[in-house]
Amino acid sequence: MDAEKSLAEAAGRFAYDGLERIIHEKARLGILTSLVAHPKGLLFNDLKELCSLTDGNLSRHLQVLQEAGLVEVSKGLRKNRPQTECRLTDDGRRRFLEYITVLENVVADALAAARAEGSPTLADGLSPA
Amino acid sequence: MDAEKSLAEAAGRFAYDGLERIIHEKARLGILTSLVAHPKGLLFNDLKELCSLTDGNLSRHLQVLQEAGLVEVSKGLRKNRPQTECRLTDDGRRRFLEYITVLENVVADALAAARAEGSPTLADGLSPA
Repeated sequence: MDAEKSLAEAAGRFAYDGLERIIHEKARLGILTSLVAHPKGLLFNDLKELCSLTDGNLSRHLQVLQEAGLVEVSKGLRKNRPQTECRLTDDGRRRFLEYITVLENVVADALAAARAEGSPTLADGLSPA
Repeated sequence: MDAEKSLAEAAGRFAYDGLERIIHEKARLGILTSLVAHPKGLLFNDLKELCSLTDGNLSRHLQVLQEAGLVEVSKGLRKNRPQTECRLTDDGRRRFLEYITVLENVVADALAAARAEGSPTLADGLSPA
């Protein structure tokens, strides 16, 4: 098989279509990982700390996640103080885990390539030990 | 240890600061994974196919990656036709692999949480088998 043919056959090999953009955004990836690790839900302030986000940033990202059906946000009272609680929806959990399996493929592809190449500091003509 | 204290101690636990934004963008993640898998470099058109990108999109992302010092782009002639070749820089390879180790942590965190929780379709009050 010549090189051109093998590349043509691999069209889209590195497109990673399964990386849903709403989930992939860096801050939202952190929020969703926090929430999958806390299936009973998290209070807004705890989520903010865990993800090192400001109030404004967390609010904005939660709104995007809520509109996409990934997260549900409920407001209530605890010890007479208003509290906001966030949790993954069932659909959100399913879609997040699908996303994570694609992310696993990215990591596997990158590490396999890096191992195949060996150290980048080897001079040309030398093989890895 | 009470719940509040343990959460406070975990501040930033899900911030994933190492996810360099320039690398994290979905299309650029595909481009960089292609390039790490092809250490001798890739022609523009092959990279475009592998990542399912348009000419305009690939050009735009390559410019960002070049300005960030991650990728080098060289123009030359092959069989008298102009060709553009793209490859990772040494610094780009190092930064990409650092990014990938953080991504591995995200995947590990998410999968550990998902396994701890068990199936999301179980009715309340039932335990996983």
